[in-house]
Amino acid sequence: MKLHQIGELGLLKEIRKRFKSTDSSIIIGIGDDAAAITPQKEKILVTTDMMNEGIHFDLGFTSSFHLGFKLVSANASDIFAMGGRPRYLVLNIAMKKDTEEEFFWDMYKGIFDAMNIYRVSLIGGDLCSSKNDMVLSATVIGTGNKIITRCGACVGDKIYVTGTIGDSACGLEILKRLTYESKEIIKNLEFWSNNHKNIGVLEYWNNESKNTIDWNIAKPLIKRHLMPIARDSLDISNYATSMIDISDGLFIDLLRLCDESNVGAKIYLDKIPLSDEMKKFAEIMGLDPIHLAASGGEDYELLFTAPPEIKFKIRNLKSKILKTTCIGEIIEKDRVVIDKSGKESALKAEGYRHFETG
Amino acid sequence: MKLHQIGELGLLKEIRKRFKSTDSSIIIGIGDDAAAITPQKEKILVTTDMMNEGIHFDLGFTSSFHLGFKLVSANASDIFAMGGRPRYLVLNIAMKKDTEEEFFWDMYKGIFDAMNIYRVSLIGGDLCSSKNDMVLSATVIGTGNKIITRCGACVGDKIYVTGTIGDSACGLEILKRLTYESKEIIKNLEFWSNNHKNIGVLEYWNNESKNTIDWNIAKPLIKRHLMPIARDSLDISNYATSMIDISDGLFIDLLRLCDESNVGAKIYLDKIPLSDEMKKFAEIMGLDPIHLAASGGEDYELLFTAPPEIKFKIRNLKSKILKTTCIGEIIEKDRVVIDKSGKESALKAEGYRHFETG
Repeated sequence: MKLHQIGELGLLKEIRKRFKSTDSSIIIGIGDDAAAITPQKEKILVTTDMMNEGIHFDLGFTSSFHLGFKLVSANASDIFAMGGRPRYLVLNIAMKKDTEEEFFWDMYKGIFDAMNIYRVSLIGGDLCSSKNDMVLSATVIGTGNKIITRCGACVGDKIYVTGTIGDSACGLEILKRLTYESKEIIKNLEFWSNNHKNIGVLEYWNNESKNTIDWNIAKPLIKRHLMPIARDSLDISNYATSMIDISDGLFIDLLRLCDESNVGAKIYLDKIPLSDEMKKFAEIMGLDPIHLAASGGEDYELLFTAPPEIKFKIRNLKSKILKTTCIGEIIEKDRVVIDKSGKESALKAEGYRHFETG
Repeated sequence: MKLHQIGELGLLKEIRKRFKSTDSSIIIGIGDDAAAITPQKEKILVTTDMMNEGIHFDLGFTSSFHLGFKLVSANASDIFAMGGRPRYLVLNIAMKKDTEEEFFWDMYKGIFDAMNIYRVSLIGGDLCSSKNDMVLSATVIGTGNKIITRCGACVGDKIYVTGTIGDSACGLEILKRLTYESKEIIKNLEFWSNNHKNIGVLEYWNNESKNTIDWNIAKPLIKRHLMPIARDSLDISNYATSMIDISDGLFIDLLRLCDESNVGAKIYLDKIPLSDEMKKFAEIMGLDPIHLAASGGEDYELLFTAPPEIKFKIRNLKSKILKTTCIGEIIEKDRVVIDKSGKESALKAEGYRHFETG
């Protein structure tokens, strides 16, 4: 059935039924002019993000499940990057009238799965038709007591990142090159379940010749791009002096943090943590892994600074997924990178910027 | 200059400069991963609304100033409809790369002018490019103590509306029919200033013949459609048992309130308040003014219920713009309308619904 056969009211009614929250701080949830909440914490955090068809995503290789999941993750990541906890979600979704109902509910399944991971409640939203492109816009409200901004980095602080960098960018590079058949496989794959099948190899195009890439290399990279999981900053926020999430690219986001803190940075290129799969992929494609890591966006890892004396504590964070790596230090003014051989050069902003060509 | 020549960062920097807030409850405003606020009131209200090119607006007769203004008004209206005060705004804007800078800043001027009326602060947002259509998505956060929902209407309550109904729908009917030259006049007119010129007449098409409509009739209707002003519910919320804003149409929104309150309603058609200009326009066009008022959307008037014994107090609200009219009463189950002659018939939902054809 198509959306125009069900209508806005029918869809809203069903969403309201499916997304009942048990959070007692929600006085009024979905279904009134506005939601009403009493978060009972000193500070309220608010972030918002938009995903546009043809700009942020390509429906050729992205399922609506992945879109929904990523939308919530991207917003949760911003709240974590402030040292807070994501709590409430409002959604604005625009889709074409002839969209299949299944596509619509798959998106909500992705939203729901991500909401469960971050323990976020849907409290409201707007559902409308669009003329050409699908648009997803979300606002996440969080709470926190100790807020970590981009402004607190001090000279002498060490610079850390969580996880590994550049995997998402590699995932995107693979996805863009896949053959139509391989794209279809990816779109219909339930990544989230642990017992998904090993599909052997994926076929991709490289300069008009068909190649294959091993599923064990491709899978974690593609999954990271399509279903990123935001990093919980709970353990970090006790130590961090400044923090930002890496959404547009490691270097561009680092420079934003430096600008706001009015400091410089020195990054050791060989310390940037890269996953084995990412290194293998870069080798296969003849790409520079450091360049991919420095400029690729949508990793949703946390980039933060902390004084050197508590370095040890940060390196021993309890949470398994929050492996952190020191990649450099805050210096007075210059923004420089040091390569393997010890050669210093200028750190240049690379990453995605809207409205810019090339 | 076009947006892609300035770039996302340049635009964000300028927005941050222009939208500095003095609200001391804002700890972190624009420019970090999330905004941080401490509203210091018991309840937080959250609402969100989206406006899509080709669905919600037609750039043929809508300026970007009007779009920005209306976006803020529509969201403020939802907060007022809960008995709250709008306080903070986050924005997601998507525009094509080749958009002129002037168009972009005109939209922000509209947003800014509306923000000033409602005393709302911009605390964050996302700016991105779109492939085809312009999209505006806003979330407004408000505060309130006594929250008025759609659920509290009781049998015996009177039903009230603020202002006059159907003006916005008439404004849209005029706008759609205007000649190209008249549309251009409207787009470039600064409605907000009181000393705008009287442009005499507007030319419009009616069944392939060119007609004119007097500016004094057209102006208030067009202004109401392009630059609606949300109604402050401060005085109402002491008395109201339930409330909703009229955004999709008087009858469809009344039925929503009835559904949520699990009651019926009896509406006296000849009591629905109509402006003189609206009646004149309907006469000229040979349209039924009551039908226009019942089904036309985007009036952003408040529809509320209150016990009959305090009727007098509500009718004498202090604020000039908040003229209220009793249009009927809450009854047990049925939803009926009574026409001038006293004839009763079923009240049918008429109004705009997304995804539905026709």
